[in-house]
Amino acid sequence: MNLFFAHFENNQAILDEKETHHLQKVLRLGKNDKVLVTDGKGKMFEGHVLEITKKQSLISLGKEREIQNNFPELSVAFAPTKSNERSEILIEKIVELGVRNIFPITSFHSERRKINVERWQKIADAATKQSLKAHRCQLHDLQDFKNFLSLKKNLENKFIAHCNSAIPTSLLKNVLSPGEDSLILIGPEGDFSQDEIHTAIDLGYKSISFGNQRFRTETAGIYFASVYNFLNTFRA
Amino acid sequence: MNLFFAHFENNQAILDEKETHHLQKVLRLGKNDKVLVTDGKGKMFEGHVLEITKKQSLISLGKEREIQNNFPELSVAFAPTKSNERSEILIEKIVELGVRNIFPITSFHSERRKINVERWQKIADAATKQSLKAHRCQLHDLQDFKNFLSLKKNLENKFIAHCNSAIPTSLLKNVLSPGEDSLILIGPEGDFSQDEIHTAIDLGYKSISFGNQRFRTETAGIYFASVYNFLNTFRA
Repeated sequence: MNLFFAHFENNQAILDEKETHHLQKVLRLGKNDKVLVTDGKGKMFEGHVLEITKKQSLISLGKEREIQNNFPELSVAFAPTKSNERSEILIEKIVELGVRNIFPITSFHSERRKINVERWQKIADAATKQSLKAHRCQLHDLQDFKNFLSLKKNLENKFIAHCNSAIPTSLLKNVLSPGEDSLILIGPEGDFSQDEIHTAIDLGYKSISFGNQRFRTETAGIYFASVYNFLNTFRA
Repeated sequence: MNLFFAHFENNQAILDEKETHHLQKVLRLGKNDKVLVTDGKGKMFEGHVLEITKKQSLISLGKEREIQNNFPELSVAFAPTKSNERSEILIEKIVELGVRNIFPITSFHSERRKINVERWQKIADAATKQSLKAHRCQLHDLQDFKNFLSLKKNLENKFIAHCNSAIPTSLLKNVLSPGEDSLILIGPEGDFSQDEIHTAIDLGYKSISFGNQRFRTETAGIYFASVYNFLNTFRA
Protein backbone atom coordinates (compact mmCIF):
# COMPACT_ATOMS: atom_id res chain seq x y z
CA MET A 1 0.00 0.00 0.00
CA ASN A 2 1.27 3.50 -0.81
CA LEU A 3 1.75 6.17 1.84
CA PHE A 4 0.82 9.84 1.40
CA PHE A 5 1.31 12.96 3.48
CA ALA A 6 -1.99 14.47 4.55
CA HIS A 7 -3.62 16.72 7.08
CA PHE A 8 -6.42 15.34 9.15
CA GLU A 9 -9.74 17.20 9.46
CA ASN A 10 -13.25 16.10 10.46
CA ASN A 11 -12.22 12.50 10.66
CA GLN A 12 -10.87 12.52 7.09
CA ALA A 13 -7.44 12.94 5.56
CA ILE A 14 -6.88 15.64 2.95
CA LEU A 15 -4.11 15.34 0.37
CA ASP A 16 -2.85 18.59 -1.15
CA GLU A 17 -2.44 19.22 -4.87
CA LYS A 18 1.06 17.73 -5.07
CA GLU A 19 0.15 14.53 -3.23
CA THR A 20 -3.05 14.29 -5.27
CA HIS A 21 -1.01 14.49 -8.47
CA HIS A 22 1.25 11.72 -7.20
CA LEU A 23 -1.74 9.55 -6.25
CA GLN A 24 -3.64 10.04 -9.48
CA LYS A 25 -1.09 10.69 -12.21
CA VAL A 26 1.99 8.81 -11.03
CA LEU A 27 0.51 5.85 -9.17
CA ARG A 28 -2.75 5.77 -11.18
CA LEU A 29 -4.87 5.31 -8.09
CA GLY A 30 -8.53 6.33 -8.01
CA LYS A 31 -11.74 6.25 -6.05
CA ASN A 32 -12.05 3.41 -3.50
CA ASP A 33 -8.38 2.41 -3.77
CA LYS A 34 -6.73 1.63 -0.45
CA VAL A 35 -3.92 3.90 0.76
CA LEU A 36 -1.99 4.85 3.88
CA VAL A 37 -1.91 8.44 5.13
CA THR A 38 0.34 10.14 7.67
CA ASP A 39 0.47 13.61 9.16
CA GLY A 40 4.27 13.30 9.23
CA LYS A 41 4.16 13.79 12.98
CA GLY A 42 3.70 10.23 14.16
CA LYS A 43 0.17 9.28 13.15
CA MET A 44 -0.68 6.85 10.33
CA PHE A 45 -4.01 5.44 9.17
CA GLU A 46 -5.25 3.04 6.57
CA GLY A 47 -7.99 4.47 4.41
CA HIS A 48 -9.49 4.58 0.96
CA VAL A 49 -9.93 7.30 -1.60
CA LEU A 50 -13.32 9.02 -1.27
CA GLU A 51 -12.99 11.84 -3.75
CA ILE A 52 -10.40 13.39 -6.06
CA THR A 53 -10.43 16.90 -7.48
CA LYS A 54 -7.57 18.71 -9.20
CA LYS A 55 -6.62 20.53 -6.00
CA GLN A 56 -7.04 17.83 -3.37
CA SER A 57 -8.17 14.34 -2.47
CA LEU A 58 -10.26 13.14 0.44
CA ILE A 59 -9.33 9.88 2.13
CA SER A 60 -11.42 8.03 4.72
CA LEU A 61 -9.70 7.32 8.01
CA GLY A 62 -9.80 3.61 8.82
CA LYS A 63 -7.62 1.53 11.10
CA GLU A 64 -4.80 3.39 12.86
CA ARG A 65 -1.34 1.88 12.41
CA GLU A 66 0.73 1.33 15.50
CA ILE A 67 3.82 3.56 15.41
CA GLN A 68 6.83 3.25 17.71
CA ASN A 69 6.52 6.83 18.91
CA ASN A 70 9.00 6.50 21.73
CA PHE A 71 11.86 6.19 19.23
CA PRO A 72 14.37 8.92 20.10
CA GLU A 73 15.23 11.62 17.58
CA LEU A 74 18.50 11.54 15.71
CA SER A 75 19.67 14.70 13.94
CA VAL A 76 22.54 14.65 11.47
CA ALA A 77 24.56 17.76 10.57
CA PHE A 78 26.91 17.21 7.66
CA ALA A 79 29.10 19.15 5.28
CA PRO A 80 27.69 18.56 1.77
CA THR A 81 30.08 16.51 -0.35
CA LYS A 82 31.82 17.76 -3.48
CA SER A 83 29.73 15.26 -5.45
CA ASN A 84 26.09 16.25 -5.01
CA GLU A 85 25.08 12.66 -5.72
CA ARG A 86 26.89 11.43 -2.60
CA SER A 87 24.98 13.91 -0.43
CA GLU A 88 21.75 12.68 -1.97
CA ILE A 89 22.63 9.07 -1.21
CA LEU A 90 23.32 10.10 2.39
CA ILE A 91 19.97 11.86 2.67
CA GLU A 92 17.92 9.03 1.20
CA LYS A 93 19.60 6.39 3.34
CA ILE A 94 19.53 8.18 6.69
CA VAL A 95 15.87 9.06 6.21
CA GLU A 96 15.14 5.36 5.66
CA LEU A 97 17.08 4.74 8.86
CA GLY A 98 14.83 7.12 10.78
CA VAL A 99 16.83 10.37 11.01
CA ARG A 100 14.45 13.24 11.84
CA ASN A 101 16.48 16.37 11.13
CA ILE A 102 19.22 17.01 8.59
CA PHE A 103 21.34 20.15 8.90
CA PRO A 104 23.65 20.91 5.96
CA ILE A 105 26.62 22.93 7.22
CA THR A 106 29.61 24.65 5.67
CA SER A 107 32.91 23.89 7.33
CA PHE A 108 36.40 25.29 6.85
CA HIS A 109 37.37 22.56 4.35
CA SER A 110 33.99 22.39 2.61
CA GLU A 111 34.25 22.01 -1.15
CA ARG A 112 30.55 22.63 -1.74
CA ARG A 113 28.87 25.78 -0.48
CA LYS A 114 25.68 25.77 -2.53
CA ILE A 115 22.91 23.22 -2.24
CA ASN A 116 19.32 22.79 -3.39
CA VAL A 117 17.38 22.28 -0.15
CA GLU A 118 14.04 21.93 -1.93
CA ARG A 119 15.36 19.06 -4.04
CA TRP A 120 16.84 17.41 -0.94
CA GLN A 121 13.54 17.78 0.94
CA LYS A 122 11.84 15.97 -1.96
CA ILE A 123 14.36 13.14 -1.74
CA ALA A 124 13.76 12.93 2.01
CA ASP A 125 9.97 12.90 1.55
CA ALA A 126 10.16 10.18 -1.08
CA ALA A 127 12.30 8.06 1.25
CA THR A 128 9.88 8.65 4.16
CA LYS A 129 6.95 7.49 2.07
CA GLN A 130 8.81 4.59 0.48
CA SER A 131 9.85 3.25 3.89
CA LEU A 132 6.36 3.86 5.34
CA LYS A 133 7.42 6.18 8.12
CA ALA A 134 5.02 8.30 10.15
CA HIS A 135 7.56 11.05 10.81
CA ARG A 136 8.69 13.52 8.18
CA CYS A 137 12.41 14.32 8.16
CA GLN A 138 13.11 18.05 8.07
CA LEU A 139 15.84 19.36 5.75
CA HIS A 140 17.20 22.63 7.11
CA ASP A 141 18.88 25.47 5.26
CA LEU A 142 22.62 25.46 4.75
CA GLN A 143 24.37 27.31 7.55
CA ASP A 144 27.87 28.02 8.76
CA PHE A 145 29.35 25.39 11.09
CA LYS A 146 30.04 27.83 13.91
CA ASN A 147 26.56 29.40 13.71
CA PHE A 148 25.10 25.95 13.80
CA LEU A 149 27.01 24.83 16.89
CA SER A 150 25.05 26.98 19.28
CA LEU A 151 21.81 25.20 18.32
CA LYS A 152 20.61 22.37 20.55
CA LYS A 153 22.73 23.74 23.36
CA ASN A 154 20.94 21.71 25.97
CA LEU A 155 21.08 18.39 24.18
CA GLU A 156 23.29 16.06 26.16
CA ASN A 157 24.14 13.60 23.39
CA LYS A 158 26.00 15.73 20.87
CA PHE A 159 28.85 14.16 18.93
CA ILE A 160 31.51 15.32 16.52
CA ALA A 161 33.07 12.57 14.41
CA HIS A 162 36.52 13.25 12.99
CA CYS A 163 39.81 11.61 12.01
CA ASN A 164 42.23 14.00 13.74
CA SER A 165 44.45 11.67 15.72
CA ALA A 166 45.95 14.57 17.68
CA ILE A 167 42.63 15.11 19.47
CA PRO A 168 41.44 12.51 22.00
CA THR A 169 38.27 10.63 21.00
CA SER A 170 35.87 8.32 22.76
CA LEU A 171 34.89 4.98 21.32
CA LEU A 172 31.42 5.09 19.83
CA LYS A 173 30.17 2.15 21.89
CA ASN A 174 31.08 3.93 25.13
CA VAL A 175 29.15 7.14 24.43
CA LEU A 176 25.99 6.12 22.54
CA SER A 177 23.06 5.85 24.95
CA PRO A 178 19.96 4.20 23.52
CA GLY A 179 16.77 6.08 24.26
CA GLU A 180 18.32 9.54 24.07
CA ASP A 181 17.81 12.19 21.40
CA SER A 182 21.17 12.74 19.72
CA LEU A 183 23.00 14.92 17.23
CA ILE A 184 26.02 13.90 15.16
CA LEU A 185 28.32 16.23 13.19
CA ILE A 186 29.95 14.75 10.09
CA GLY A 187 32.74 16.71 8.40
CA PRO A 188 33.63 17.37 4.77
CA GLU A 189 36.05 15.33 2.66
CA GLY A 190 39.02 17.16 4.24
CA ASP A 191 37.65 16.64 7.78
CA PHE A 192 36.80 19.38 10.27
CA SER A 193 39.64 21.77 11.06
CA GLN A 194 41.40 21.41 14.40
CA ASP A 195 39.91 24.74 15.46
CA GLU A 196 36.38 23.58 14.57
CA ILE A 197 36.75 20.37 16.56
CA HIS A 198 38.00 22.28 19.62
CA THR A 199 35.15 24.79 19.37
CA ALA A 200 32.63 21.94 19.29
CA ILE A 201 34.25 20.19 22.25
CA ASP A 202 34.17 23.45 24.23
CA LEU A 203 30.41 23.61 23.56
CA GLY A 204 29.84 20.14 24.97
CA TYR A 205 30.13 18.00 21.84
CA LYS A 206 31.76 14.63 22.49
CA SER A 207 34.71 13.89 20.24
CA ILE A 208 34.28 10.43 18.69
CA SER A 209 35.98 8.17 16.21
CA PHE A 210 34.74 5.10 14.36
CA GLY A 211 37.83 3.14 15.32
CA ASN A 212 40.78 2.93 12.99
CA GLN A 213 38.58 3.26 9.89
CA ARG A 214 38.46 5.75 7.06
CA PHE A 215 34.90 6.39 5.85
CA ARG A 216 33.63 8.74 3.20
CA THR A 217 31.38 11.54 4.50
CA GLU A 218 28.18 9.82 3.41
CA THR A 219 29.33 6.44 4.70
CA ALA A 220 30.09 7.93 8.12
CA GLY A 221 26.57 9.35 8.32
CA ILE A 222 24.88 6.14 7.17
CA TYR A 223 27.04 4.08 9.54
CA PHE A 224 26.16 6.23 12.55
CA ALA A 225 22.45 6.26 11.66
CA SER A 226 22.48 2.46 11.23
CA VAL A 227 24.13 1.87 14.60
CA TYR A 228 21.80 4.36 16.30
CA ASN A 229 18.82 2.66 14.69
CA PHE A 230 20.07 -0.79 15.76
CA LEU A 231 20.71 0.21 19.37
CA ASN A 232 17.31 1.87 19.68
CA THR A 233 15.22 -0.64 17.71
CA PHE A 234 16.51 -3.49 19.83
CA ARG A 235 16.85 -1.80 23.21
CA ALA A 236 15.17 -3.25 26.29
CA MET B 1 48.81 8.66 0.92
CA ASN B 2 47.35 6.53 -1.89
CA LEU B 3 47.01 2.78 -1.62
CA PHE B 4 47.77 0.31 -4.45
CA PHE B 5 47.34 -3.41 -4.91
CA ALA B 6 50.68 -5.16 -5.38
CA HIS B 7 52.43 -8.46 -5.12
CA PHE B 8 55.44 -8.71 -2.90
CA GLU B 9 58.71 -10.21 -4.16
CA ASN B 10 62.31 -9.93 -3.00
CA ASN B 11 61.40 -7.36 -0.37
CA GLN B 12 59.80 -5.08 -2.95
CA ALA B 13 56.24 -4.49 -4.09
CA ILE B 14 55.39 -4.80 -7.77
CA LEU B 15 52.40 -2.99 -9.26
CA ASP B 16 50.91 -4.45 -12.43
CA GLU B 17 50.17 -2.49 -15.58
CA LYS B 18 46.71 -1.34 -14.46
CA GLU B 19 47.89 -0.14 -11.05
CA THR B 20 50.90 1.51 -12.68
CA HIS B 21 48.60 3.38 -15.06
CA HIS B 22 46.56 4.57 -12.09
CA LEU B 23 49.66 5.67 -10.20
CA GLN B 24 51.30 7.48 -13.09
CA LYS B 25 48.50 8.72 -15.36
CA VAL B 26 45.59 9.25 -12.99
CA LEU B 27 47.30 10.29 -9.77
CA ARG B 28 50.37 11.79 -11.49
CA LEU B 29 52.77 10.17 -9.05
CA GLY B 30 56.38 9.45 -9.95
CA LYS B 31 59.74 8.32 -8.71
CA ASN B 32 60.36 8.78 -4.97
CA ASP B 33 56.73 9.60 -4.19
CA LYS B 34 55.38 7.95 -1.05
CA VAL B 35 52.62 5.36 -1.41
CA LEU B 36 50.93 2.52 0.47
CA VAL B 37 50.85 -0.99 -0.96
CA THR B 38 48.78 -4.03 0.00
CA ASP B 39 48.66 -7.63 -1.17
CA GLY B 40 44.89 -7.56 -0.60
CA LYS B 41 45.29 -10.38 1.88
CA GLY B 42 45.97 -8.49 5.09
CA LYS B 43 49.42 -6.97 4.65
CA MET B 44 50.11 -3.27 4.08
CA PHE B 45 53.37 -1.34 3.85
CA GLU B 46 54.47 2.23 3.39
CA GLY B 47 56.94 2.64 0.60
CA HIS B 48 58.16 4.88 -2.18
CA VAL B 49 58.29 4.55 -5.92
CA LEU B 50 61.62 3.14 -7.11
CA GLU B 51 61.01 2.64 -10.80
CA ILE B 52 58.21 2.92 -13.34
CA THR B 53 57.99 1.22 -16.70
CA LYS B 54 54.94 0.91 -18.94
CA LYS B 55 54.21 -2.59 -17.67
CA GLN B 56 54.93 -2.31 -13.96
CA SER B 57 56.26 -0.23 -11.07
CA LEU B 58 58.61 -1.17 -8.27
CA ILE B 59 57.92 0.12 -4.77
CA SER B 60 60.27 -0.12 -1.80
CA LEU B 61 58.86 -1.82 1.28
CA GLY B 62 59.16 0.45 4.31
CA LYS B 63 57.26 0.43 7.57
CA GLU B 64 54.54 -2.21 7.88
CA ARG B 65 51.10 -0.89 8.83
CA GLU B 66 49.32 -2.59 11.70
CA ILE B 67 46.17 -4.28 10.44
CA GLN B 68 43.37 -5.66 12.61
CA ASN B 69 43.65 -9.14 11.12
CA ASN B 70 41.44 -10.82 13.65
CA PHE B 71 38.41 -9.05 12.21
CA PRO B 72 35.89 -11.74 11.25
CA GLU B 73 34.74 -12.11 7.66
CA LEU B 74 31.32 -10.91 6.60
CA SER B 75 29.92 -12.17 3.30
CA VAL B 76 26.85 -10.59 1.72
CA ALA B 77 24.67 -12.40 -0.83
CA PHE B 78 22.10 -10.14 -2.44
CA ALA B 79 19.65 -10.09 -5.32
CA PRO B 80 20.77 -7.29 -7.67
CA THR B 81 18.28 -4.44 -7.69
CA LYS B 82 16.25 -3.36 -10.71
CA SER B 83 18.23 -0.12 -10.71
CA ASN B 84 21.87 -1.04 -11.33
CA GLU B 85 22.94 2.16 -9.58
CA ARG B 86 21.43 0.97 -6.29
CA SER B 87 23.43 -2.27 -6.47
CA GLU B 88 26.56 -0.23 -7.08
CA ILE B 89 25.86 1.95 -4.05
CA LEU B 90 25.44 -1.20 -1.97
CA ILE B 91 28.75 -2.62 -3.21
CA GLU B 92 30.76 0.55 -2.61
CA LYS B 93 29.35 1.06 0.87
CA ILE B 94 29.64 -2.49 2.17
CA VAL B 95 33.23 -2.71 0.93
CA GLU B 96 34.01 0.45 2.90
CA LEU B 97 32.37 -1.26 5.87
CA GLY B 98 34.70 -4.23 5.52
CA VAL B 99 32.64 -6.89 3.71
CA ARG B 100 34.97 -9.52 2.23
CA ASN B 101 32.79 -11.47 -0.19
CA ILE B 102 29.84 -10.37 -2.27
CA PHE B 103 27.64 -12.99 -3.94
CA PRO B 104 25.08 -11.69 -6.43
CA ILE B 105 22.17 -14.13 -6.57
CA THR B 106 19.00 -14.50 -8.61
CA SER B 107 15.89 -15.13 -6.59
CA PHE B 108 12.31 -15.99 -7.58
CA HIS B 109 11.23 -12.32 -7.56
CA SER B 110 14.47 -10.91 -9.03
CA GLU B 111 13.91 -8.18 -11.57
CA ARG B 112 17.53 -8.13 -12.73
CA ARG B 113 19.17 -11.28 -14.02
CA LYS B 114 22.18 -9.79 -15.80
CA ILE B 115 25.05 -7.99 -14.14
CA ASN B 116 28.54 -6.79 -15.00
CA VAL B 117 30.77 -8.48 -12.42
CA GLU B 118 33.95 -6.93 -13.80
CA ARG B 119 32.55 -3.44 -13.36
CA TRP B 120 31.38 -4.29 -9.84
CA GLN B 121 34.81 -5.69 -8.96
CA LYS B 122 36.33 -2.37 -10.08
CA ILE B 123 33.93 -0.48 -7.82
CA ALA B 124 34.84 -2.79 -4.95
CA ASP B 125 38.57 -2.35 -5.58
CA ALA B 126 38.25 1.44 -5.73
CA ALA B 127 36.39 1.41 -2.41
CA THR B 128 39.02 -0.87 -0.84
CA LYS B 129 41.80 1.47 -1.88
CA GLN B 130 39.90 4.64 -0.99
CA SER B 131 39.20 3.36 2.51
CA LEU B 132 42.77 2.05 2.90
CA LYS B 133 41.88 -1.56 3.54
CA ALA B 134 44.38 -4.43 3.46
CA HIS B 135 41.82 -7.02 2.34
CA ARG B 136 40.40 -7.15 -1.15
CA CYS B 137 36.68 -7.85 -1.38
CA GLN B 138 35.85 -10.60 -3.87
CA LEU B 139 32.89 -10.14 -6.22
CA HIS B 140 31.53 -13.54 -7.25
CA ASP B 141 29.61 -14.49 -10.38
CA LEU B 142 25.84 -14.28 -10.42
CA GLN B 143 24.27 -17.58 -9.41
CA ASP B 144 20.88 -19.01 -8.68
CA PHE B 145 19.68 -18.64 -5.09
CA LYS B 146 19.17 -22.36 -4.54
CA ASN B 147 22.54 -23.29 -6.00
CA PHE B 148 24.14 -20.70 -3.78
CA LEU B 149 22.52 -21.97 -0.59
CA SER B 150 24.61 -25.10 -0.40
CA LEU B 151 27.79 -23.02 -0.20
CA LYS B 152 29.26 -22.34 3.22
CA LYS B 153 27.35 -25.27 4.62
CA ASN B 154 29.42 -25.42 7.75
CA LEU B 155 29.24 -21.75 8.60
CA GLU B 156 27.28 -21.38 11.81
CA ASN B 157 26.28 -17.75 11.44
CA LYS B 158 24.15 -17.70 8.32
CA PHE B 159 21.20 -15.35 8.14
CA ILE B 160 18.31 -14.71 5.82
CA ALA B 161 16.67 -11.29 6.19
CA HIS B 162 13.09 -10.99 4.94
CA CYS B 163 9.78 -9.22 5.58
CA ASN B 164 7.44 -12.23 5.50
CA SER B 165 5.47 -11.85 8.71
CA ALA B 166 4.04 -15.38 8.38
CA ILE B 167 7.50 -16.85 9.08
CA PRO B 168 8.99 -16.52 12.58
CA THR B 169 12.11 -14.37 12.81
CA SER B 170 14.71 -13.72 15.46
CA LEU B 171 15.67 -10.23 16.51
CA LEU B 172 19.00 -9.20 15.02
CA LYS B 173 20.51 -8.35 18.41
CA ASN B 174 19.83 -11.84 19.71
CA VAL B 175 21.59 -13.72 16.91
CA LEU B 176 24.61 -11.61 15.92
CA SER B 177 27.74 -12.89 17.63
CA PRO B 178 30.77 -10.63 17.40
CA GLY B 179 33.94 -12.43 16.44
CA GLU B 180 32.27 -14.96 14.15
CA ASP B 181 32.46 -15.15 10.36
CA SER B 182 28.98 -14.56 9.04
CA LEU B 183 26.87 -14.60 5.88
CA ILE B 184 23.71 -12.59 5.27
CA LEU B 185 21.19 -13.09 2.45
CA ILE B 186 19.35 -9.99 1.25
CA GLY B 187 16.37 -10.43 -1.06
CA PRO B 188 15.15 -8.56 -4.13
CA GLU B 189 12.62 -5.71 -4.17
CA GLY B 190 9.73 -8.22 -3.94
CA ASP B 191 11.42 -10.14 -1.08
CA PHE B 192 12.39 -13.82 -1.09
CA SER B 193 9.55 -16.22 -1.85
CA GLN B 194 8.09 -18.19 1.04
CA ASP B 195 9.56 -21.34 -0.49
CA GLU B 196 13.03 -19.79 -0.70
CA ILE B 197 12.92 -18.72 2.94
CA HIS B 198 11.89 -22.19 4.08
CA THR B 199 14.63 -23.81 1.99
CA ALA B 200 17.21 -21.55 3.59
CA ILE B 201 15.90 -22.24 7.10
CA ASP B 202 16.05 -25.99 6.42
CA LEU B 203 19.72 -25.55 5.50
CA GLY B 204 20.53 -23.85 8.79
CA TYR B 205 20.05 -20.18 7.89
CA LYS B 206 18.58 -18.14 10.74
CA SER B 207 15.49 -16.18 9.79
CA ILE B 208 15.89 -12.55 10.89
CA SER B 209 14.05 -9.27 10.67
CA PHE B 210 15.23 -5.72 11.22
CA GLY B 211 12.30 -4.99 13.50
CA ASN B 212 9.18 -3.39 12.13
CA GLN B 213 11.09 -1.51 9.42
CA ARG B 214 10.91 -1.53 5.65
CA PHE B 215 14.32 -1.07 4.02
CA ARG B 216 15.27 -1.04 0.37
CA THR B 217 17.54 -3.94 -0.68
CA GLU B 218 20.68 -1.82 -0.64
CA THR B 219 19.77 -0.17 2.66
CA ALA B 220 19.25 -3.57 4.29
CA GLY B 221 22.73 -4.66 3.20
CA ILE B 222 24.41 -1.44 4.33
CA TYR B 223 22.52 -1.53 7.64
CA PHE B 224 23.59 -5.10 8.38
CA ALA B 225 27.21 -4.41 7.39
CA SER B 226 27.26 -1.28 9.60
CA VAL B 227 25.92 -3.11 12.63
CA TYR B 228 28.31 -6.03 12.06
CA ASN B 229 31.21 -3.59 11.72
CA PHE B 230 30.15 -1.75 14.90
CA LEU B 231 29.78 -4.91 16.99
CA ASN B 232 33.15 -6.25 15.84
CA THR B 233 35.14 -3.01 15.86
CA PHE B 234 34.17 -2.31 19.41
CA ARG B 235 34.06 -5.80 20.85
CA ALA B 236 35.98 -6.51 24.04
